[in-house]
Amino acid sequence: VLSRLPDAQVTFLAADGEPGERRTENGMLALSADRSLEDMPSPDVIVVPGGFGTRALMEHLRFLDWLRNAHELSTWTTSVCTGSLVLAAAGLLDGVEATTHWLLLGRLGELGARPVSDRRIVQTGRIITAAGVSAGVDMAIALAAEIAGADTAEAIQLGIEYAPEPPFAGGSTHTARPEIIAMVRDNPRFA
Amino acid sequence: VLSRLPDAQVTFLAADGEPGERRTENGMLALSADRSLEDMPSPDVIVVPGGFGTRALMEHLRFLDWLRNAHELSTWTTSVCTGSLVLAAAGLLDGVEATTHWLLLGRLGELGARPVSDRRIVQTGRIITAAGVSAGVDMAIALAAEIAGADTAEAIQLGIEYAPEPPFAGGSTHTARPEIIAMVRDNPRFA
Repeated sequence: VLSRLPDAQVTFLAADGEPGERRTENGMLALSADRSLEDMPSPDVIVVPGGFGTRALMEHLRFLDWLRNAHELSTWTTSVCTGSLVLAAAGLLDGVEATTHWLLLGRLGELGARPVSDRRIVQTGRIITAAGVSAGVDMAIALAAEIAGADTAEAIQLGIEYAPEPPFAGGSTHTARPEIIAMVRDNPRFA
Repeated sequence: VLSRLPDAQVTFLAADGEPGERRTENGMLALSADRSLEDMPSPDVIVVPGGFGTRALMEHLRFLDWLRNAHELSTWTTSVCTGSLVLAAAGLLDGVEATTHWLLLGRLGELGARPVSDRRIVQTGRIITAAGVSAGVDMAIALAAEIAGADTAEAIQLGIEYAPEPPFAGGSTHTARPEIIAMVRDNPRFA
């Protein structure tokens, strides 16, 4: 979504060292990080993604330092899913309303934020946090509207044909059956 | 979504040569293809993704041969977005109902399929095609239900917190404003 904004340059940064391939925890998907943190000290827009890798990032002092400094100058500082835990670990969410994957809302509170459980996108000033994984799409389109106006954001949404029809009603804990919530709680594969 | 299915192994194949990094047309995103076509002659599930790269794939005889042979033995043969044009180019959609990105429905028809413009997921036997980009999420969850049952698919959907709230109503040509449709038609950046 963001890469379709006029004049946008999206760059994947290596949070933990030199540029190169980075693989998801299950090993199935590998992306290339094209720049180091030092290469890009102050992007206009920061997006901290979620996933199992955020656990290590929350204790990665060099990354947290980079994030604090980059946030000083950014226009937008954002996160998707458990990425907000990293923003919180960097001290950027102290007393700030924010969201994250529903399984980690309690943890987000422990880290000093004010967790919001009933909104997929939570904005406070120039910080925007999105709920679990798929909420990142909603956030990216909303952010595109802030950056380039509603018409451009609508064009991007139509371009990705985002008129979703989820196969099941239970995509949030507010609508899911209790036994399905238990399945996800008990099995990290689903989360 | 599919990587969360119990016992699933998701592998990215290099359609055009040796395994290694592959980059999107705008150069911003690079994924690693971990295996060659010869390494995996018969996956259980085939997913042909969309994007600008499908134009070349439609004329890539080695890939089309692989796809025809793999389809003989697959449980499910699927596509997202313009990936269905590649299925059609391989001759797998002759006279078959299918969908694709809304901008390419006419092209899909020229290639011998019967284009369906009002459904995000079109299934005919063991072939499933999804509409533009984001419809791939809906398809993957529906496919998860076929493979592992509704409970598992619902758990995956809840795990990715897929209770979408699109910022705008116009995510399909059936609801978009005419001037937004024109913007996407006229500017490949948005498509």
